Amino acid sequence: MPVPEALTALAKILGDRLSRSKSDLDLHGRNETYFPFAPPDAVAYPETTEEVAAIARICAQHDCPMTGWGAGTSLEGHALPVRGGISVDFSRMNRVLQINPQDMDCVVQPGVTREALNQELRATGLFFPVDPGANASLGGMASTRASGTTAVRYGTMRDNVLGLEAVLADGRVIRTGTRARKSAAGYDLTGLFVGAEGTLGLITELTLKLQGQPEAISAAVCAFDEIGPAVETVIETIQMGIPMARIEFVDAATAAAVNAYSGASFPEMPHLMVEFHGSEAGVAEQAESFGALVGEHGGHGFDWSSRPEDRNALWTMRHNAYYACLATRKGATALVTDLCVPISRLAEAVEETRADIAAATIPGPILGHVGDGNFHAILLVEPGNTAELDEAKALSHRMVERALRMGGTATGEHGIGMGKLGYMDKEHGAAWDVMGALKQALDPNNLMNPGKMVRQG
Amino acid sequence: MPVPEALTALAKILGDRLSRSKSDLDLHGRNETYFPFAPPDAVAYPETTEEVAAIARICAQHDCPMTGWGAGTSLEGHALPVRGGISVDFSRMNRVLQINPQDMDCVVQPGVTREALNQELRATGLFFPVDPGANASLGGMASTRASGTTAVRYGTMRDNVLGLEAVLADGRVIRTGTRARKSAAGYDLTGLFVGAEGTLGLITELTLKLQGQPEAISAAVCAFDEIGPAVETVIETIQMGIPMARIEFVDAATAAAVNAYSGASFPEMPHLMVEFHGSEAGVAEQAESFGALVGEHGGHGFDWSSRPEDRNALWTMRHNAYYACLATRKGATALVTDLCVPISRLAEAVEETRADIAAATIPGPILGHVGDGNFHAILLVEPGNTAELDEAKALSHRMVERALRMGGTATGEHGIGMGKLGYMDKEHGAAWDVMGALKQALDPNNLMNPGKMVRQG
Ligand SMILES: Cc1cc2nc3c(=O)[nH]c(=O)nc-3n(C[C@H](O)[C@H](O)[C@H](O)COP(=O)(O)OP(=O)(O)OC[C@H]3O[C@@H](n4cnc5c(N)ncnc54)[C@H](O)[C@@H]3O)c2cc1C
Ligand SMILES: Cc1cc2nc3c(=O)[nH]c(=O)nc-3n(C[C@H](O)[C@H](O)[C@H](O)COP(=O)(O)OP(=O)(O)OC[C@H]3O[C@@H](n4cnc5c(N)ncnc54)[C@H](O)[C@@H]3O)c2cc1C
Repeated sequence: MPVPEALTALAKILGDRLSRSKSDLDLHGRNETYFPFAPPDAVAYPETTEEVAAIARICAQHDCPMTGWGAGTSLEGHALPVRGGISVDFSRMNRVLQINPQDMDCVVQPGVTREALNQELRATGLFFPVDPGANASLGGMASTRASGTTAVRYGTMRDNVLGLEAVLADGRVIRTGTRARKSAAGYDLTGLFVGAEGTLGLITELTLKLQGQPEAISAAVCAFDEIGPAVETVIETIQMGIPMARIEFVDAATAAAVNAYSGASFPEMPHLMVEFHGSEAGVAEQAESFGALVGEHGGHGFDWSSRPEDRNALWTMRHNAYYACLATRKGATALVTDLCVPISRLAEAVEETRADIAAATIPGPILGHVGDGNFHAILLVEPGNTAELDEAKALSHRMVERALRMGGTATGEHGIGMGKLGYMDKEHGAAWDVMGALKQALDPNNLMNPGKMVRQG
Repeated sequence: MPVPEALTALAKILGDRLSRSKSDLDLHGRNETYFPFAPPDAVAYPETTEEVAAIARICAQHDCPMTGWGAGTSLEGHALPVRGGISVDFSRMNRVLQINPQDMDCVVQPGVTREALNQELRATGLFFPVDPGANASLGGMASTRASGTTAVRYGTMRDNVLGLEAVLADGRVIRTGTRARKSAAGYDLTGLFVGAEGTLGLITELTLKLQGQPEAISAAVCAFDEIGPAVETVIETIQMGIPMARIEFVDAATAAAVNAYSGASFPEMPHLMVEFHGSEAGVAEQAESFGALVGEHGGHGFDWSSRPEDRNALWTMRHNAYYACLATRKGATALVTDLCVPISRLAEAVEETRADIAAATIPGPILGHVGDGNFHAILLVEPGNTAELDEAKALSHRMVERALRMGGTATGEHGIGMGKLGYMDKEHGAAWDVMGALKQALDPNNLMNPGKMVRQG
């Protein structure tokens, strides 16, 4: 039994920071959505890169799987240690190591959460823009290539990680990238680790781009009678080059859920929620141009606000939309879909999905980051009801097929984890074998988050 | 002798599109800078992906090296087939395959040049922003992770390639990415091929992001007494979030060279050249804010123009600056340096470099894409004069050391090729071995542009 030997050796270096308590194993065997409980054999809480490297060396020696754990908010069962071994929980590596205001970058440990980072940045006039709603860890966000409401303006984690430090499966420590804004020096290893879901190594440090707090921000919400004109408004906004910082879609069912959950009073119709960042005059001009487009497409209830408290209320509601939808069905768990298509196909993709869900027996409110062509259906199923879960999976399956048929992807931002592994072949074809070859090159004994990402032997 | 057998087999499928003419071998053995002549054994001119795949299969069978050739404008001897074999010249794969105006993307063959693409896009109101000055091919630009004057606003090739098709060393054809704006579906293979300098495979198709032509553009040039305040102006412009589309620095020597070459009449001082893209009001506001910063830092001769002919003249001069510098020394060849540092270190890096060159016997005008912290010295040497070339290399060496010491990179945009291979170990350490492992995984027989990028056996 290799794992027990590994645990003995790990306990020697970590002491009580190697935990086998039931509560720890339970926590790290659970996930945010519908995947079955899958606990690790132990949970390691490293505090330094050197400790992570020592953990990897011991695990390599004893053939013990290692699966990173950030905040556990991923939606496809990514962080579940499905082949046992240890969870490497980064919550104690949660320091902001450097903030470089002139260079507008910072260096953080992977366990720092998005909210904690922005809290620390507050006094500097800078902020970190990637915002998946959940208070995820930056190591986890990098590993899933997360994005969220602001990606339409500031990009995804792919665009906002300048460099990183990682511990490989054999315990070697590498650094990728630099603090320069760009580089043409060799293969883009930073980009390779971002989105690798911990299957190539454990990220122990990140250098992140920051943004200046805009001089002015304004936000608005407006309602449409139909989905089509709402999406048309988005397409034209992009084409006119109006630089929105966020543009979110919620359907009528989501609006209703948010009303019930957050005490809001949105009409039960499709909505767009937008935000602009810029100078006072710039934001005013953008608001005006956008308002005109909304009018042309029959949008109404259009209401601007540049008061921070109104904006915060709006985005808090949006961020709670997932929980609001969950709450519409008592005790439900969710299967959250995540397709992303070329924007020209977005209206069609949303409409077809809407119709498909309408014909099903389970509810599935739709919402999404429509500026990127990305949306989610939150399919609500009764835990343990396999018929419903099968129905949800069938709906999700058709959505993925739809996305691929339209030139899109099975996952815009949530990642592969366990839920999308079955689509890798279809989406990537021979390129999936190339991913397998890369995994084999960096982790030949398949110790880093095994069971994920590549073809399973 | 494996290569002759390969050539026989290749000639069978390519006919006279496999050339062994002296002029073809000469052309593909030359480079834009100081690297010695290194001709291929033959030049292949494929017209389709299938032909490229067939070429790769034949070369794999006969152990014959393959080196891609785009427009041959790279500056570090990238495209020189230093181990012989064939040059795969993409000039006949020069079709724009799709333009999708609603999605603001296009699909091109790799031999399409930047200028040809923008010509085809003219009627659509869209443009492709990455602009290295030279009329490079898009396959070459992707392969070097090129950037240029507009990267400060629109990013580098890393940010503007949505997906690609590549032929691997064994002839397999893969497709990476999709036409969706973002994806979290697996390892970022697009990013891996971008910047790989043809060492992992041959790119046969690219899906590129496009930008809308801005409603208004204005450009300006202004002079400073010293380098320091010019760079300070740049830093503050970025920090204020003024979204410049280009911000270029030229030193006094470059200004003089441009005067002589293009009949301009810049004062012989450091200059900034800037451009803003946006709405009429937005551009006016940006110009005003920038003008104020220039004034605060003692800049003068500040002059705006929104007339296209003036702007074109300005950027043509900038793009010809390399040739203008070359022309200051009759018959000279150049060693072009390419450091990139965190912007907070830029003034220091430029000043130290300036002083170092001033103490040398060879001239070396400085210019650069300062918004990214990236600048070049064009070190002019007499061909065949090894003492001068050694002096240039020593200067370049100190510049790289300076960049690395300051947290930057040996190459901001030109890439590794032959000139920077010696710095990979120092810049990347153990991560360079990881690059070697990736190369080994995808091209185990080292047939794709051998002699480049990874540790040489
Ligand atoms: C309400 C809600 C809304 C959401 N909205 C969005 C959204 O808008 N956009 C979006 O992109 N996502 C969204 N998500 C999903 C989730 O927040 C993201 O996937 C996030 O990036 C996960 O980060 P985490 O720290 O929770 O990672 P975890 O779930 O802990 O781990 C995710 C993966 O990363 C690996 N990992 C974690 N840390 C490391 C490390 N240091 N090194 C190597 N591997 C590591 C794990 O092994 C796992 O494979 C949402 C989730 C919820 C619950
Ligand atoms: C005057 C001047 C100014 C310049 N300014 C800039 C600048 O501002 N910014 C900048 O980034 N660069 C600049 N460059 C450098 C050069 O233009 C870029 O490196 C450009 O990307 C090279 O493209 P190319 O088509 O000429 O490629 P080539 O020189 O033909 O090839 C470059 C590399 O790519 C490989 N390659 C080419 N095509 C393919 C393919 N289809 N598949 C796989 N591999 C391939 C080659 O093997 C080689 O390794 C400048 C050059 C000159 C001469």
